[in-house]
Amino acid sequence: MNGAESLVETLVDNGVDICFANPGTSEMHFLAALENPKMRSVLCLFEGVATGAADGWYRMKDKPASTLLHLGPGLANGLANIHNAKRASSGMVNIIGEHSTSHLKYDPPLTSDIEGLARPLSHWVRRADSSDTIAWDTAQAVAQASQHPGKIATLILPGDTSWREVAAKVELPTLEAAQPKAPDAGRIAHIACVLQSGEPALIILANKATRGLALERAGQIATATGARLGSQFFTARIERGAGRVPIERIPYAVGQATEFLKGFKHIITVETREPVAFFSYPDKPSLLKAEGTMVHTLVEADEDSALAFEILLDELGAAHTKPALQPRVEVAVPTGVLNPLSIAHALSASIPENCIVVDESLTTGRESMGHTMGALPHDLINNLGGSIGYATPVATGAALACPDRRVFCMVGDGSAMYTIQSLWTQAREGLNVTTIIFANNSYAILKAEYANMGAGVPGARALSMIDIDRPSIDWQAMAKSMGVPSVFVDTAEAFHKAMADSVRTPGPVLIQVRL
Amino acid sequence: MNGAESLVETLVDNGVDICFANPGTSEMHFLAALENPKMRSVLCLFEGVATGAADGWYRMKDKPASTLLHLGPGLANGLANIHNAKRASSGMVNIIGEHSTSHLKYDPPLTSDIEGLARPLSHWVRRADSSDTIAWDTAQAVAQASQHPGKIATLILPGDTSWREVAAKVELPTLEAAQPKAPDAGRIAHIACVLQSGEPALIILANKATRGLALERAGQIATATGARLGSQFFTARIERGAGRVPIERIPYAVGQATEFLKGFKHIITVETREPVAFFSYPDKPSLLKAEGTMVHTLVEADEDSALAFEILLDELGAAHTKPALQPRVEVAVPTGVLNPLSIAHALSASIPENCIVVDESLTTGRESMGHTMGALPHDLINNLGGSIGYATPVATGAALACPDRRVFCMVGDGSAMYTIQSLWTQAREGLNVTTIIFANNSYAILKAEYANMGAGVPGARALSMIDIDRPSIDWQAMAKSMGVPSVFVDTAEAFHKAMADSVRTPGPVLIQVRL
Repeated sequence: MNGAESLVETLVDNGVDICFANPGTSEMHFLAALENPKMRSVLCLFEGVATGAADGWYRMKDKPASTLLHLGPGLANGLANIHNAKRASSGMVNIIGEHSTSHLKYDPPLTSDIEGLARPLSHWVRRADSSDTIAWDTAQAVAQASQHPGKIATLILPGDTSWREVAAKVELPTLEAAQPKAPDAGRIAHIACVLQSGEPALIILANKATRGLALERAGQIATATGARLGSQFFTARIERGAGRVPIERIPYAVGQATEFLKGFKHIITVETREPVAFFSYPDKPSLLKAEGTMVHTLVEADEDSALAFEILLDELGAAHTKPALQPRVEVAVPTGVLNPLSIAHALSASIPENCIVVDESLTTGRESMGHTMGALPHDLINNLGGSIGYATPVATGAALACPDRRVFCMVGDGSAMYTIQSLWTQAREGLNVTTIIFANNSYAILKAEYANMGAGVPGARALSMIDIDRPSIDWQAMAKSMGVPSVFVDTAEAFHKAMADSVRTPGPVLIQVRL
Repeated sequence: MNGAESLVETLVDNGVDICFANPGTSEMHFLAALENPKMRSVLCLFEGVATGAADGWYRMKDKPASTLLHLGPGLANGLANIHNAKRASSGMVNIIGEHSTSHLKYDPPLTSDIEGLARPLSHWVRRADSSDTIAWDTAQAVAQASQHPGKIATLILPGDTSWREVAAKVELPTLEAAQPKAPDAGRIAHIACVLQSGEPALIILANKATRGLALERAGQIATATGARLGSQFFTARIERGAGRVPIERIPYAVGQATEFLKGFKHIITVETREPVAFFSYPDKPSLLKAEGTMVHTLVEADEDSALAFEILLDELGAAHTKPALQPRVEVAVPTGVLNPLSIAHALSASIPENCIVVDESLTTGRESMGHTMGALPHDLINNLGGSIGYATPVATGAALACPDRRVFCMVGDGSAMYTIQSLWTQAREGLNVTTIIFANNSYAILKAEYANMGAGVPGARALSMIDIDRPSIDWQAMAKSMGVPSVFVDTAEAFHKAMADSVRTPGPVLIQVRL
């Protein structure tokens, strides 16, 4: 057994059984080790697809995937989606190929400071110095990535570590399954007082608190106390739709967000912090709460929300309160022009129970998603890091994680272009992904932001940096180039039909929506 | 005038008059400042296109372009081609948008350690703290980037620095035009002795020494002394073809390279270092020279090759020696199957005088390019950093730098997929780029490297990480999606005709070559 084989064996023994790979010459022994039948390898034609797919895998599985990237530049290409994953608290084990140790001193062309590139966006970085100890390094990487919240672990794999035989295998520590910390009793007692005061309170839920038992209990607390439940504009994964505890979304725009928040005397945070503007603007605040609103932490990011809520419900004497659930809202199939409302209705009428919606439709989706609360129950995934190009890779990873669930990937044209290579992996793996391109031929969000920034009205040159209409992208040709069938729609009924059709047809499809 | 306007004005006043941009919300004032009519702005749909295009611009202009990238993740997306540019000694001024200073402490979603991400691949990094002093910072960035060899300068632009008015503009220093250092007389005298010994010597030329007066003088030295002229396998830009001083290329593969080098008693380096294997292999050397071969530095990377050669010619008494020039080799238009030789002949027969060839055809081009020495004079550009996805952006930048010259971009299918968004910018700007996709549906180089690495014969799973044939990419559809016309060829005569046609038709075209 060589170092690469030891690495792959340790990954699969510790539950990391998928590798999103874009290999190069220095990773040939790793490729050979991927023959391990317990490891699934998925080829991606750009590293940003690999890291984004690992993020999508984690969001649906709550366990890390691995990536294989080719030296410093390969890591660099994956960093933007590592940033997004880090902000979403997704765990991930990145394996970065590297020259053999003896070769590095000659500074060959692909040499760079891999640790330097990895550290700003990794929680843990290590260079595997020996084939004998790489199993230990790998086990540590998986343990780090598997914490709550998930962590970015980056393991650098020199060629000689990869190809040398394991002479004496190290005994691995028994790794405890990562458990969230118990919440603080004092904090919970304080929050009970706050909620019993009857003063208007917003409980902001994030990460693991927006689904499952934790979400149900949050609903009980809301019903028992009159507190409202909110989320940041972007959340890692929300279980929503009919029959779920509904969560109100804090708006994106600073003015709307401050308006939404101004009535609350208390903001109570769960696995998140108080709401902050996404960007800074010359004459707008960074913090979105009203003056005088108090912020209280109920659950820290590394603590157990479900347990905290259980204790809180006991303190409130509300353990048997029934949560208010979102009723199903049947909507008619919309017809005519596409606008945020008709798009929402088409979505609501077409998405099947238990589907996954990955949303990166910045301008279009912002106005639509609020109208889909009464759709059949589904999971909603957002981009927490703000680096565009996250949706198509995350949808790819989510579809691999949940092969029986249809994934709807709603994405603006500007964002889709960043990591469009995802389509190829979707075709290759036959993934059940419906990619919906909202083609407004523009970085439309920037047009609004230009004015928000106080930069005035964009002139011709500035506008030419915002509009992407010369040439307009032919998304059907794009899909065809990578083996994905496609549909063009420009009415609400055609949009609805295309989505409904996609549910019945296995494999990927792209819907180009002309706005 | 605000900080962004001061920045753009200082760029253009210092000769940096093009900006390859992919903006976001935090750069709206910079977009407004791009209304400056002296600045040309070019929109790129992915940051790797922007940084690669800046590299291509520098290679043809010998002066830096600027890029505009959106916070840490935007920089990250551009880093792989910054790595390639750095290795090619291309200068570049990267402007990285950032949150305003007061906003950073709230750690909003797009926050990251931009300095940390920039440093491993930048020579110079600075955060512009004030609109008053940003002109100074910008002038320093341009001065750094404009050194010989070119440098990567990265200037971080916080929102408030961008939008605040300039209260008191600083007086800028008069920047001396960057000049290469004078070479060392002692070293030159030593090299004269070496060359006069009559022992077999190889002079390895790089960077500025592979063109213009320096190359001509190198040819005189070779003719006068019997030394041979060589280049590394990859060089930033070579002036080659009929009428130019020919340079022999050290092969890529370790075995071929050591074979090529074994007869030389002396290796003399000019703006480069002794040849090193691109990758390390279990049983192959890192250094490629034979035992006993001596390595001598003639010109360091920051010195003046043309001047060094002039002094050396004087020492040798060879100032009036005529260099041997490459004769024109007329080749017949090839017919029939496409193979390295027929591809080379098709190239030789079709490329017009003064065109630019950007080569990233790893497996195909490696065998072909040696047969194009007798083509009409042209410039050849290679990837020195080894991070694939450099060719289509570099071709984009080179075409903008030289609007009157046709650019041939020869690229493998695997490499082309990395930064395929370049096609859109080529269509938008109407650039004279002929993109030639050698579609072997494979990371073919890796098949050879698998064996070279001693990893044996790839199994089915390893092969599935190397072949990119399921699905095979439809390059004509890809071109159409971004507004670029295309041709499909699978014979030598069709390939020749497509290239010759492209020379007569303004604007971009893509040729899909089925191998």
